[in-house]
Amino acid sequence: MERTLIGDLAQHIGKNVTIEGWVDVARNQGKMAFFDFRDRSGLVQGVVFGKPEVLEVAQNLKQEWVVRITGTVNERPEKMRRDVQNGNIELEITGIEVLSEAHALPFDKDAELNIDTHFDNLPLTLRLERTRHIFSVQATIVNTFRNALTSEGFTEFQAPVLVGGDAEGGAAVFKIEDYYGKEAYLATSGQLYKQIMIGPFERSMTVAKTFRAEKSATTRHLAELTQLEFEMGFVQDHTDVMKMLEKVIRTIATTVAEKHAVALKFLGAEPALLPEGSFPTFTLLEAQEIIEKEFGGKAVGELDLEPEHERQICAYAKEKLGSDFVFITHFPTKKRAFYTFADPANPERSLSFDLLFRGLEINSGSQRIHNYDELVEKMKARKMDPEKFSFYLQAFKYGMPPHGGCSTGLERLTMKMLDLSNVKEASAFPRDMNRIDTLLSKPEE
Amino acid sequence: MERTLIGDLAQHIGKNVTIEGWVDVARNQGKMAFFDFRDRSGLVQGVVFGKPEVLEVAQNLKQEWVVRITGTVNERPEKMRRDVQNGNIELEITGIEVLSEAHALPFDKDAELNIDTHFDNLPLTLRLERTRHIFSVQATIVNTFRNALTSEGFTEFQAPVLVGGDAEGGAAVFKIEDYYGKEAYLATSGQLYKQIMIGPFERSMTVAKTFRAEKSATTRHLAELTQLEFEMGFVQDHTDVMKMLEKVIRTIATTVAEKHAVALKFLGAEPALLPEGSFPTFTLLEAQEIIEKEFGGKAVGELDLEPEHERQICAYAKEKLGSDFVFITHFPTKKRAFYTFADPANPERSLSFDLLFRGLEINSGSQRIHNYDELVEKMKARKMDPEKFSFYLQAFKYGMPPHGGCSTGLERLTMKMLDLSNVKEASAFPRDMNRIDTLLSKPEE
Repeated sequence: MERTLIGDLAQHIGKNVTIEGWVDVARNQGKMAFFDFRDRSGLVQGVVFGKPEVLEVAQNLKQEWVVRITGTVNERPEKMRRDVQNGNIELEITGIEVLSEAHALPFDKDAELNIDTHFDNLPLTLRLERTRHIFSVQATIVNTFRNALTSEGFTEFQAPVLVGGDAEGGAAVFKIEDYYGKEAYLATSGQLYKQIMIGPFERSMTVAKTFRAEKSATTRHLAELTQLEFEMGFVQDHTDVMKMLEKVIRTIATTVAEKHAVALKFLGAEPALLPEGSFPTFTLLEAQEIIEKEFGGKAVGELDLEPEHERQICAYAKEKLGSDFVFITHFPTKKRAFYTFADPANPERSLSFDLLFRGLEINSGSQRIHNYDELVEKMKARKMDPEKFSFYLQAFKYGMPPHGGCSTGLERLTMKMLDLSNVKEASAFPRDMNRIDTLLSKPEE
Repeated sequence: MERTLIGDLAQHIGKNVTIEGWVDVARNQGKMAFFDFRDRSGLVQGVVFGKPEVLEVAQNLKQEWVVRITGTVNERPEKMRRDVQNGNIELEITGIEVLSEAHALPFDKDAELNIDTHFDNLPLTLRLERTRHIFSVQATIVNTFRNALTSEGFTEFQAPVLVGGDAEGGAAVFKIEDYYGKEAYLATSGQLYKQIMIGPFERSMTVAKTFRAEKSATTRHLAELTQLEFEMGFVQDHTDVMKMLEKVIRTIATTVAEKHAVALKFLGAEPALLPEGSFPTFTLLEAQEIIEKEFGGKAVGELDLEPEHERQICAYAKEKLGSDFVFITHFPTKKRAFYTFADPANPERSLSFDLLFRGLEINSGSQRIHNYDELVEKMKARKMDPEKFSFYLQAFKYGMPPHGGCSTGLERLTMKMLDLSNVKEASAFPRDMNRIDTLLSKPEE
């Protein structure tokens, strides 16, 4: 019999069906056996009773065994219905075929796992309802990002991972041991390439793999990241980029809220709070003044927001302005990358912004310098060698429009969207200074 | 005045408009000046006459200068119309604002460039009509791949680039010089991870960056690749994977043909020839027999198809069966990866396939072994240490359904779809043993 997806069973009440999936839960009660079965479309309860030859097979089934089940879709009595997927039906099992057995699980699926145990067992723990929700939502975020920008005329390209130098400067980089006898590194950003792509496409975007060799193992750091990046030509200033970003982020937040209500509920996360007007926007100085006034302490004069200040300005925006998102603009020019456009009205401040979401910076962007001579001058002032950037600089030599762009950390956005406590939980296969799949050195026992 | 996209100008005949873009072509004819302007939506011709103060500015404009142009959209006289975008209109220029100047170009945009000159100047040469077509089509391919599989219930995930070992074995790999004092490599495939993702999602897909350190600089090799990969659970055998792949490839080919007819024409490429029934499918042995019969020479008994044989069987399929695509199945088990499922009817042959397109293998796939004990045994027989694969093996220890999948080389697919002669032309920023953006060592002069 043709397979029916579990998510479609409610359309087959009274019919015989075949499903295929995993034993999510098995409860053996002597003369009866109860199961939850799982496939890509969801869960359904199944029961065996009054069929000794089926019961005999059923009593062997354990969690994560892979099975083909034949049965009848019965409607449950009114009072037995539950407010979950397939809560109104039950599969009365008439046949069981085992497709694949499983070893006994190393821990209970409901157990609160230590985070290293969770990561050491990802091929199993990725199957937990919690993690399935996280990465379903992440797939939606990536897909929505790309579709929203495609419909705005952006062209996607594949930013390279291998680069010839540490172009952005500053960040710790990974080096390839032997790239055909020459120097090669892992990209820390798709920035220079998406700017180059302004030339052919005017609006470019990429889902870029980027790498940070920082010796940091906090809840906010990963060695391998996914960046959602876009860059757009013919802007008036950074506010055109902010408008585009806000549009995309609103679409993502709304799509996640609509499509993943069950996931949000399961994870205890609220849908992102979106203000009716635009996202609240403060210059760094304005934000610092608010922080001092509302929360005390010292903030004005600092060159960036401390993590604690990011949390405070977000708390303020949420309470007073009904928004989980806040833009901070006009960071000191010297604190931003060399290609950042200085504010003509005050060159010490730049036409740059960060987007904060629930207390964390998830995006950083700016208008960029588009004039070749100015860019070269800026490099020299920072003791960078324009000769090393001659490939990149061609884009500016041969006519570049005023432009700007930004980059969103996919894992950070996922983390905050789902109120996770550690960014590593938002990477399917997290890498940091202690881990590539398994721990790089086992802790002392 | 609000900017109008060049692609929308035909809707503004008789109106005053402002456009923004690049000077694609400039022809100064003394008392008149003609231009082609380019933005992300296309090209339009503009002309200045009878306005001395505008003409003065116009006479300075050179190729790739970035401008804001004000003018009137005039309909052309019937006999002056051309069969190209905006061929029925002309912009009568009334104002010019230069947004960004450009240096003189290092070569004529119409020149036939040596391929290294082309790549050394990508920030400029990516703007050529030819390259814009190539990467517009590539963006469509990637987008169509993902959307087609999303609608088939696949969940996208981000496959890691950093891996702890050379899991697949064999292929030359790049090593990280210092990953926090431990061993780390660049992934040669997303294979093991998409198999792990069967557990949570049953159908998984990824657009994966992969890396080959092969000392090969042919027209078919790149050091950094983009792989379009999917993997699906609950298959009967490899033919279920082939059916899904064919469906996706047909959607891609049809979408490219419909959306990029101009690009195909410009590049001199025919739309991919799709047979009415299924793609022609031969076992390796059948293909070899056809090759010997139709083209002479020796093929039967070889463990794989030689490049020349791939071209021959494709020529045969095109001429006799009306298809640019051919599946070859049942490759020798020992020639395929350790996880490949052997044909129960003849274990020396495997339930594997390659998809050839216009003479080149663009995809490789198979049913995979899903039984834990069998997989461990297979590893041992190949002198691989199962202990090193213990992370991956968990997926099989805890219940894996019969499954299979495949991987398409994005650059190869793009290359063949557009009849390019070198795969490097299908990578926006190609990396090989001689190049990361610029040549790694300048040729002797």
